[in-house]
Amino acid sequence: MANTQSPTPAMPLVALLSRESGESLADQIVRSIAARIDDKVLRSGARMPSIRAFAQAHRVSPFTVVASYDRLVARGYLESRRGAGFYVREKAAPVVRSAPDPAVEQGTAAMDVTWLVRNMFRQAPYQQMPGTGVLPSEWLDGAGIANALRAISRQHPGTLVNYGVPQGFLPLRQQLQEKLAALDIAAAPEQIVTTAGVTQALDMVAREFTQPGDTIFVDDPAWFLMFGSFAALGARVIGIPRLADGPDLQALAQLAALHQPKLYVINSVLHNPSSTSLSAAKAFQILRLAEEHDFIVVEDDIYCDLHPGPAIQPVTRLATMDQLRRVIYLGGFSKTLAANLRVGYIATSHERAQRLADRKMLQTLTTSEIGERVVYKVLSEGTFRKHTDRICSRLDELRSRTVRQMERIGLKIDATPVAGMFVWADAGRDTNVLAAQAMAQDLLLAPGSLFSPSQLPSSRMRLNIAAMQEPAVWRFLEKALQN
Amino acid sequence: MANTQSPTPAMPLVALLSRESGESLADQIVRSIAARIDDKVLRSGARMPSIRAFAQAHRVSPFTVVASYDRLVARGYLESRRGAGFYVREKAAPVVRSAPDPAVEQGTAAMDVTWLVRNMFRQAPYQQMPGTGVLPSEWLDGAGIANALRAISRQHPGTLVNYGVPQGFLPLRQQLQEKLAALDIAAAPEQIVTTAGVTQALDMVAREFTQPGDTIFVDDPAWFLMFGSFAALGARVIGIPRLADGPDLQALAQLAALHQPKLYVINSVLHNPSSTSLSAAKAFQILRLAEEHDFIVVEDDIYCDLHPGPAIQPVTRLATMDQLRRVIYLGGFSKTLAANLRVGYIATSHERAQRLADRKMLQTLTTSEIGERVVYKVLSEGTFRKHTDRICSRLDELRSRTVRQMERIGLKIDATPVAGMFVWADAGRDTNVLAAQAMAQDLLLAPGSLFSPSQLPSSRMRLNIAAMQEPAVWRFLEKALQN
Repeated sequence: MANTQSPTPAMPLVALLSRESGESLADQIVRSIAARIDDKVLRSGARMPSIRAFAQAHRVSPFTVVASYDRLVARGYLESRRGAGFYVREKAAPVVRSAPDPAVEQGTAAMDVTWLVRNMFRQAPYQQMPGTGVLPSEWLDGAGIANALRAISRQHPGTLVNYGVPQGFLPLRQQLQEKLAALDIAAAPEQIVTTAGVTQALDMVAREFTQPGDTIFVDDPAWFLMFGSFAALGARVIGIPRLADGPDLQALAQLAALHQPKLYVINSVLHNPSSTSLSAAKAFQILRLAEEHDFIVVEDDIYCDLHPGPAIQPVTRLATMDQLRRVIYLGGFSKTLAANLRVGYIATSHERAQRLADRKMLQTLTTSEIGERVVYKVLSEGTFRKHTDRICSRLDELRSRTVRQMERIGLKIDATPVAGMFVWADAGRDTNVLAAQAMAQDLLLAPGSLFSPSQLPSSRMRLNIAAMQEPAVWRFLEKALQN
Repeated sequence: MANTQSPTPAMPLVALLSRESGESLADQIVRSIAARIDDKVLRSGARMPSIRAFAQAHRVSPFTVVASYDRLVARGYLESRRGAGFYVREKAAPVVRSAPDPAVEQGTAAMDVTWLVRNMFRQAPYQQMPGTGVLPSEWLDGAGIANALRAISRQHPGTLVNYGVPQGFLPLRQQLQEKLAALDIAAAPEQIVTTAGVTQALDMVAREFTQPGDTIFVDDPAWFLMFGSFAALGARVIGIPRLADGPDLQALAQLAALHQPKLYVINSVLHNPSSTSLSAAKAFQILRLAEEHDFIVVEDDIYCDLHPGPAIQPVTRLATMDQLRRVIYLGGFSKTLAANLRVGYIATSHERAQRLADRKMLQTLTTSEIGERVVYKVLSEGTFRKHTDRICSRLDELRSRTVRQMERIGLKIDATPVAGMFVWADAGRDTNVLAAQAMAQDLLLAPGSLFSPSQLPSSRMRLNIAAMQEPAVWRFLEKALQN
C-alpha cells in the first residue's frame, strides 16, 4: 500500500480522494493525514510534501491543500517551519481533540480582515508576502535588540522581576519626551503611557473614549485591523475618503455633522496603505472640524521614523499643531526596531494620560518592562536615528525601480510614493480574486477590500516594496495581470 | 532666607504654610517646591527631606506630604527611588505643564481599588508593604530570567524582531500542555492562548463572553482589580460569599437563579486573599450549578505553583474535573518567576481558544515573544519546580511564626492557612482607617473593603507573610491595634 510509505513529493500520501462522498476534499485530507499520524505511519519530524507537490499528486487545488495543512497545524498534527514547509509535529499529538473548529475551517474560505491578519501572522511557510505590512526581519535591529537584552540581563536581577509602573518605564518616557520634542510636540513623561504596540493603544483609546454605539471615523483606505477592533467594541466605523494630501474635507465635514463621531483615527505621516502624508492646510482644517464637531483626533504615527524629512515629503503632524489638546498621538517601534518587543505609546493631555494609565492598569496591569528597557537602551544610545536612516536609504534604493517595474506589468499607481514602504497599486481587476490566486501559489497579497470599512471589492491592493524582490512575485503578478 | 539653602531634614523647605489661605496645604507644598525647582533653588539630583522629616519641620501630617510628593512626581519635578526617598529629577523639568490633574489630586483622598493598585505599583519609597500581593523580588527568579535573556540574545537576531503568532509562542504552549497534563488537565497547544498576565486574560475573557449589562460573579472577598476591569466593560459584578472550602453554595444557587450570570470567576487553589482552597465536593457542585444556569466558570489559578501538594492541603481544580468544557482555566508566572515578563495564558476548548486568539489579535496583535521565550526556557530546563519548591519552603518557615505573632498582637485569623503567602486577618476595627494611618507612616496595607465588590468597610485585611518581616510593621500594627 502506498499509504505505508514515507511521503515523497510525487507519491500520493492519502487514500484516493472522493468527490462524491459528501465530505469535502479538505475534510478527507485532514482526516486521512491525522489518522496516519495517529497510527504512526507518518512519524514525527517527517517532512510533508510541498503544497504544490501534494496538490499535483492528489489532483486537488493548492488552495485545498493549504486549508488542510492549516487545520492540521491548528489541531497539533503538523507544524510549519517558515520557508521550509510543513512537518509532522515532534511531540506526540495531543490526546484531546474536540470537534473541528468552525473558525479554523473557514480560515481560507472567507477573505476578511481576520483572514488576512491570521495569515500574515501565522508563520506559514509562504514563499513571499508582497502584501505584508512589515519590513524583512533582516532590515530590523535584531543585533541591537540582542545587545540590549544582554545589557539588561547584567542589571540587578531585582529589576527584572518587579511589575514596573502601569504608566510605563519612566526613563523610556523621558526618552520619548525628547523624541516628541524633536517633532515640536511638547509632552512631559506623565503625559505618556506605554502600550503593547499601537494596536493596543488604539484599543485602549477607543475603549476609554467611546461607548458602544458611538461612531469612529477612519480613513478609507486605512489599517484594517482597527476596523475589527472597533467593531468588537460596538462602535460604528465610518470611512473618510483619503486623497493624496489627506482626507476629503468636504466628506469629513458632512459626515461629522451627520454622525457626530467621538474619534477620528488618522495616519498623518506615511499613510498606510498609500505612503502619502497630510498637507498642512488639511491638518489645520481637520483640527477646525474636530473643534466644531467636538471629536478627538487620534494621530497614529507608527511610520514616523520611516519619514525621510520635510525636504523629501512635506510633513505636518496634527499633534505639533494642536499640542495634545484635542489630538491623542500614538507611536511605536514595531516597524523599525522589532515587532516582537510590543512597545508603543500614547501621548496626550495630563488628564487623558491619567485616565488611560488607570485603564491600562485594569486591562493589563503593566506592560513588560523588559521590552521598554530594550527600547530605552536603543533610544538612549543614539544609534536609533542612524538605524532608521539606513532603512530609509534601502527603501529609496528600491522604490523607483520597483514602481517602474510595477507600471511595466500593468499596475497603475496614482501617487508615486517618495517615502515609506507601501505602494497602493491599482490592478484593474478585483484584487480579492487575485489574492486567492496568489495564495494558491504561496504568495500573500493584501487586497484593497480589506483596507476599507465597507469591505467592498476593490481593484487596489497594498504592495510592500521591500517584500517583492523575488522573481516569483513578479512572475505571478505579470501572469495574473495578463489574463 | 532659609529657602535658598539646600534641604536638610530638619529645615523648613517651603515658606510658612497657611491654614487660612483657602489653598489646601498640599497645594501650597506642591506650588512652593515646584517654584523652587523651576528657580533652580532646588537643584536636580538633590535629595528631598524624608516624609516624616518634612512633616515635622512644617507641622503637617505625613499624609499631606505623601500626597504632595506624589503630585510632584506625577508632574515630573521629583522622582522616587525605591527605599531611598525622593529626589529632584535629573532632567530639566518638562516645559509643558497643564492644569493639575484631578485624578492625581484625589489620589490619596479616595481609598478605592484604583488607589490601592496605583499605590502598589507606583514604586513609591514605602518602607514596607505588608498588604502587597507579590513576593519580595529577591524571592523570585531574577537570575534565571537574566540567564534566559542572555541565551535568547544569542539566538538568531531574526527571531527577535518578528511579530510572533497571535496565539503565542508555540514551544511555550507545548510546555504549558505538559504543565497542565501534570494537573490532569488535557489541553492541546491550540487550546492555549498566551496573554500579558492573568489580568489581561480576565479582561479578554470578559470581553469575549459578556455583553455590557451582563452579570459576572466573583468571590467575596476576591482579587479586586477585576472588579474595576469588569465594571469598565459595563458588567454587573456580584460577589459570592467565600467560605474556607469554597463559595457559599446556597448563595451561589440563589444568586445564579436570580441574575443568570455569564461568568463566575474563582480562585480554586490558594484563594486570594485567604489562601484557602476549594473542596472537591464544592467543585463538583459549582460545575453542576454552572450547567444548570449555563454560565462559564473562569478558574484563575495564578497561585498554582505555590501550592505544596495535596498532602498538605487538598486541592481540586475545576478544569481537572470538567476538562475545559465549561471551565476556562487561567495561569501565569507573575507570582513566581517575574511579574515584569507579563506572561500568562488561557486554556479552554478549541472553539473558545480560537475566538480568544482572534480577539487578542484585534486587541493587541501579539504578546511579546521575548517574554514567552524566557518562560519557555525556564520551564523547559526543568528548574522551575525546584524554584517554586524553594519559595514554598520559605513561606512554610515563616508562616506559623508570623501567624502566631499576628494573633499575639490581637489579629484574628479564622482559617490558619497551611500554604500560600496571604493571611486574611480580622483587625476588629475598620481597616480603611487602619490603612490611612499606616500610609502616613509609609506602610501600605490592603484593607478588606477593597476585596469585596460591595466595597463596604471591613474589619478584615490581607497580610502577606513574606512582606512583614520588619520590626516597623509590627510596631505599627501593635500600636494601632492597642488603641
